[in-house]
Amino acid sequence: MATRVDFIASGTVTSPQGFHAGATYAGIKQKADDVLDLGVLFSEAPCVAMALFTTNRIKAVPVVLCQQRLQRGRALALVVNSGCANAFTGEEGLADADEMADLAARNIGVSPENVLVASTGVTGQRLPMKLIRAGIGQIVLTKDGGHELARAIMTTDTMAKEAAVAVRAGDGEFIIGGVAKGSGMIHPELATLLCFLTTDAVVDIDFLKLALRKAVDVSFNMVSIDGDTSPNDMVLVMANGLAGNEVISPDSHQASAFQQGLDQVCIYLARSIASDGEGATKLIEVTVSGAVSVAEARLAARTVVSSPLVKAAVHGSDPNWGRIIAAVGRSGAEVVESKIDLYLGNICLVRAGKPLPFSKPSVVELLSQGEVLVSLQLNLGTATATAWGCDLSEEYVTINSQYTT
Amino acid sequence: MATRVDFIASGTVTSPQGFHAGATYAGIKQKADDVLDLGVLFSEAPCVAMALFTTNRIKAVPVVLCQQRLQRGRALALVVNSGCANAFTGEEGLADADEMADLAARNIGVSPENVLVASTGVTGQRLPMKLIRAGIGQIVLTKDGGHELARAIMTTDTMAKEAAVAVRAGDGEFIIGGVAKGSGMIHPELATLLCFLTTDAVVDIDFLKLALRKAVDVSFNMVSIDGDTSPNDMVLVMANGLAGNEVISPDSHQASAFQQGLDQVCIYLARSIASDGEGATKLIEVTVSGAVSVAEARLAARTVVSSPLVKAAVHGSDPNWGRIIAAVGRSGAEVVESKIDLYLGNICLVRAGKPLPFSKPSVVELLSQGEVLVSLQLNLGTATATAWGCDLSEEYVTINSQYTT
Repeated sequence: MATRVDFIASGTVTSPQGFHAGATYAGIKQKADDVLDLGVLFSEAPCVAMALFTTNRIKAVPVVLCQQRLQRGRALALVVNSGCANAFTGEEGLADADEMADLAARNIGVSPENVLVASTGVTGQRLPMKLIRAGIGQIVLTKDGGHELARAIMTTDTMAKEAAVAVRAGDGEFIIGGVAKGSGMIHPELATLLCFLTTDAVVDIDFLKLALRKAVDVSFNMVSIDGDTSPNDMVLVMANGLAGNEVISPDSHQASAFQQGLDQVCIYLARSIASDGEGATKLIEVTVSGAVSVAEARLAARTVVSSPLVKAAVHGSDPNWGRIIAAVGRSGAEVVESKIDLYLGNICLVRAGKPLPFSKPSVVELLSQGEVLVSLQLNLGTATATAWGCDLSEEYVTINSQYTT
Repeated sequence: MATRVDFIASGTVTSPQGFHAGATYAGIKQKADDVLDLGVLFSEAPCVAMALFTTNRIKAVPVVLCQQRLQRGRALALVVNSGCANAFTGEEGLADADEMADLAARNIGVSPENVLVASTGVTGQRLPMKLIRAGIGQIVLTKDGGHELARAIMTTDTMAKEAAVAVRAGDGEFIIGGVAKGSGMIHPELATLLCFLTTDAVVDIDFLKLALRKAVDVSFNMVSIDGDTSPNDMVLVMANGLAGNEVISPDSHQASAFQQGLDQVCIYLARSIASDGEGATKLIEVTVSGAVSVAEARLAARTVVSSPLVKAAVHGSDPNWGRIIAAVGRSGAEVVESKIDLYLGNICLVRAGKPLPFSKPSVVELLSQGEVLVSLQLNLGTATATAWGCDLSEEYVTINSQYTT
């Protein structure tokens, strides 16, 4: 069966049928041009829904609330704010999140238990409920509102992250869309981001769980910016079934087409997060091949892309490739010095463990591009994995040394 | 039995009886005022010796050579250079390290198999043997030469790291000294540093192995600067027995006195490394108490002190304490939100999971000191651990984006 996955121009979380969104500036974040900080996503038909959450033992209040509400595997809407994480706020925080869902439910006209909540921002501060009460009524839901929602979840992000694909598989056709935020506190194991995915495909909940895990593993779980994680991380998917395709279960013939579409949206968003890392000037993509297992390939690729010394060297376009070797050596993956090949872009720097002479200006030029591709061939097995990250700049430090002051 | 451990003024690796050292500028590092890059340490009496090495799978050539030569548990001398790591240099690199040991052996008048080798600097480059051949003859060994050796192993270090203690236990008296280097690529599991320890105590090799592991666990393995590790890490201890005390074995009555002395030298050197981290302006000390096990206390303390976001906040004296909570939450240690107490210096910011109001100027002032003390009480058990690190500054990035260029 022929499958086509095409990115939709200006695609976003409201590209699938029946999804509406909107946002406003409630005053939670500092005022600036075009800033939004409170948003709502709504589906006109009931959704099968599930989410993956932070692995941090300190869980933000919205995470706890969503874990409870998603036990039924259904949802209709989501309300989200930026500027305050509502994390480490105890029972008062839970009451605030509850009220936030109630306010949104009343405004849309649905029952509160169908409304999910997400927050991002500073940890340890109560939500400014007065501002949220005033703001929620200003939100107008539209078919184009995904773009607003994408902006309303930004914190130190410098650009909105959104995408959608149209998937055609045989007779069936459906759309998968999404928005994400994340710039600092980004690391594998779902840290740190908010991502809301939507689809009009008809899917079975068990399939949706499998598909989301797989997609997250090749995308958000392969991105690292600074190794930190937050209590607020959440990747949510809502499927309203309005495309009317035959229900997709793990064994159905459209399962792999759906997976391809979901993977592509998630990888696009994950790469966007990496290239918009706090202070980043370059995207770094590291592919490790020839590892003895996929787990080791993933570990090696993630370790190299997370190394502060590799990141700083890329920032300065410094061809200090020994740091890549040192990072893969400490990753825990099996490596044999005399078998390693190392490429920067298309330039081979090491073959079978031997450093090759290279033209320094050519390597510096490659390192000066907006995307830097590192490729390690371990020559021990057949497993491959790709990870994404960004360079480490002085600006990262400046941003993070003055975040609350 | 009364034990006294006293730091010796201007103590160093040659403070114990019978140790001599010296260094020269061979031209391996870039020329600067007072720069040294090649050094020798020598004991006039044969030593019991052992070392702990990098856990990186890529091992530098000097590490491989020392692992072979220390199988007998004996050594007389060490030759060390900075400016070139002699790592990822294959068989040619091994021949170079061998020759370096031969040159030193001939110069001191000992047989080459008693000479150990260490290197630190850029990975993937051959040693400039011509410079080493010319430089080695210029080294003059003196009783005061430990200070020169400490300078000869510096790379991005801004200060020499050296210490010695006199240990009195009952009738016995002996000295333990050491030098270390490390500024970037610093992380637990022995990464990344060179440390050479000496003692004139009479010790049994099995005891020495136990004692070094214990000392490293509470010192170098509790320091993190940037999470990276190098192929060159090594902590070596040489004991020449000239103090003439009764031989110390695991059960002897002087064992705990020796351990106290060794711990104190290692902790002093480890703290020096943390406060001299690349670009550091402040030392950060994190103590976690009330953990369910020592392993979890160690994990939690190390995770907090390694967090780029905590480090950046400390740099900017930004009282963003939620990041400390987020870091301990992701550490893997068991934590219960409603039980956590958090102190910055003597100011309690969180009690039983509840954020307390605090005077922002007072907290900012605490964060502006040269040493910032963070204390987390998990209130779950009785285990405690302390870790050391430093703030993350723009200067760290600047140093590491231009290291080889």
